[in-house]
Amino acid sequence: MTIGVTVLGSTGSIGRATLEVLRRHRDRFHVVALTGATNAELLAEQARAWRPAYVGLAQGGNTDCLVEAATRPDVRIVVNGIVGAAGLEATLAALRAGKRVALANKETLVMAGDVVTRAAREGGGELVPVDSEHSAVLQCLGGRPPDHVARLILTASGGPFRTWTPERVARATVAEALNHPTWRMGRKITVDSATLVNKALEVIEAHFLFGVRYDQVDVVVHPQSMIHAIVEFVDGSTLAQVSAPTMELPILYALTHPERRPDAAAPRLDLVAAGALTFEPIDFALFPAYGLGRAAGEAGGTAPAIFNAANEIAVERFLEGALPFGRIAPVIGAALARHVAAPADTLSAVLAADAEGRRLALEAACS
Amino acid sequence: MTIGVTVLGSTGSIGRATLEVLRRHRDRFHVVALTGATNAELLAEQARAWRPAYVGLAQGGNTDCLVEAATRPDVRIVVNGIVGAAGLEATLAALRAGKRVALANKETLVMAGDVVTRAAREGGGELVPVDSEHSAVLQCLGGRPPDHVARLILTASGGPFRTWTPERVARATVAEALNHPTWRMGRKITVDSATLVNKALEVIEAHFLFGVRYDQVDVVVHPQSMIHAIVEFVDGSTLAQVSAPTMELPILYALTHPERRPDAAAPRLDLVAAGALTFEPIDFALFPAYGLGRAAGEAGGTAPAIFNAANEIAVERFLEGALPFGRIAPVIGAALARHVAAPADTLSAVLAADAEGRRLALEAACS
Repeated sequence: MTIGVTVLGSTGSIGRATLEVLRRHRDRFHVVALTGATNAELLAEQARAWRPAYVGLAQGGNTDCLVEAATRPDVRIVVNGIVGAAGLEATLAALRAGKRVALANKETLVMAGDVVTRAAREGGGELVPVDSEHSAVLQCLGGRPPDHVARLILTASGGPFRTWTPERVARATVAEALNHPTWRMGRKITVDSATLVNKALEVIEAHFLFGVRYDQVDVVVHPQSMIHAIVEFVDGSTLAQVSAPTMELPILYALTHPERRPDAAAPRLDLVAAGALTFEPIDFALFPAYGLGRAAGEAGGTAPAIFNAANEIAVERFLEGALPFGRIAPVIGAALARHVAAPADTLSAVLAADAEGRRLALEAACS
Repeated sequence: MTIGVTVLGSTGSIGRATLEVLRRHRDRFHVVALTGATNAELLAEQARAWRPAYVGLAQGGNTDCLVEAATRPDVRIVVNGIVGAAGLEATLAALRAGKRVALANKETLVMAGDVVTRAAREGGGELVPVDSEHSAVLQCLGGRPPDHVARLILTASGGPFRTWTPERVARATVAEALNHPTWRMGRKITVDSATLVNKALEVIEAHFLFGVRYDQVDVVVHPQSMIHAIVEFVDGSTLAQVSAPTMELPILYALTHPERRPDAAAPRLDLVAAGALTFEPIDFALFPAYGLGRAAGEAGGTAPAIFNAANEIAVERFLEGALPFGRIAPVIGAALARHVAAPADTLSAVLAADAEGRRLALEAACS
């Protein structure tokens, strides 16, 4: 018997990479369910190719099909590749149903970290990261207990604007923001990489996934994107995960963890060809949204949900050409400033904060 | 009850570093026995400071005290920091007595890998590497099974002659050979690092320690000595161990493996301060002894013992000023060429090969 897998967001960047990985590992996995939201044509094509038991098109905010696809009894692993808050309910339902959730959808953890980790505890589900940085941490930890860990260091490529002046970054075009130097990803996450909001989301994600304090999570800029994360242990030793920047590796590892499977298509590490690996501190003046995200994480409660929601709105408006790049951080900052933080221990509190963050960001973007 | 530790070669570089580590971890370990060979004054001083139950001075080839110190019932861990073949018998005795042997003495594994690993199997002993590269591999493996491993990559600093011409290297002085760019170590191992014989010994050591084939062990030159080894897994992911070059870290890990203990004296990794990490292939023309060592490992049987013994003689003569640096590799090569390889599955076969290697090397050095 092979293992049943649901792919939520199968037509997106993570979903397509997941199907590519599953294609090479059909002897171990089969696709039970696929869901998409906007690209009905590609979803139909995938359905013809994979013949899953269930296909769901989540349109007009109707997410019932996501929950259905994520909780079927014939599913053991749910790969959640949905972008943004829309993936939260399916993650919770899958965890409560005892599934492994391979989570690319970091926003769900950021906005609802307490609710999501509680759902996993209560339902016997398991959260396994697909993000390359968190997959790297998981691999470096190697099952060692939390009291071995002194510090996590996530790497950031620095995005396309690392060497620009703040003035030039403020006027960056959509095309410039989407021109990521090392990773090929979806549009929203590529903009988040240009603002370094993505790295702030990852710091918050690491806090919830690995149970570490914020002062135990550092970020270092590493333009080559070869080292994805480093775990510093209490005895001063550190382990780093190193590989060419491809999402297929962390996706495969999320499916097989803690085991590994030979993967013929995996690019072999060639450090000599890679050239020098370099490291720089983050320039907080160049990436103000990163500092806002860390502060929201440390504030806790509903603040991360506000940060995430405001960012989604700001990025949406930027991609529509309605907001300059340099206004993304101020819009997020305004939303956070106007919000009164509250506990985020129920789904309704989280969803209310999400709605409030969007409203506050829209107001700030239009003012 | 704290854990009893014997330190063989306590007055040497590894021995002194071990006592420094033990000094910081007296709440967990105590010293049962110390042995030295040449520096009786320092040994007496260490004995006064540590008040061990046993102190042995191994002089004139008498190694009985080493075996006695290594097999006492009140000892759980034997740190073997003896340089060269003299440490072999104590390693075997400790493994047969079910001890953990923290092995800095890589020569014993190189000359007698089959005998040593069999002793560990039969006696229930455990070999744990102290070499920084092998400690790095052990940490990266994290207890994962051998079928997860595709390849081990050991790093080499490249030693002091990495950027020299072969002609200049051939005339290198003792002072130049002892001027290692990143590590402070004993004289013999420092010369071995200048010839890259040390790296060939480590490749053979890795073969025996981790049960990998020679085509699964690569070496890459990494002048900064920050990444000590990399394990490539079958799915294409790799883990690297990264830390400032200090022997205290692998010594502590060899004592605590698979656990870790907080160590306040451990230098914290600062990648930004470390600057660029670079990687180069090994220049076989510049380091001919490295190729000889790999070939001896692949030939198997008594060939690694011949390689190791011939190298010990050649380095001895070089340090005495009686052999030019450029003659070290030819002397080793001549000894290997004149030797008829045989199985190395008994201690007497190994010791005979060791004696023959020394004789052949002396002949070659004097011709």
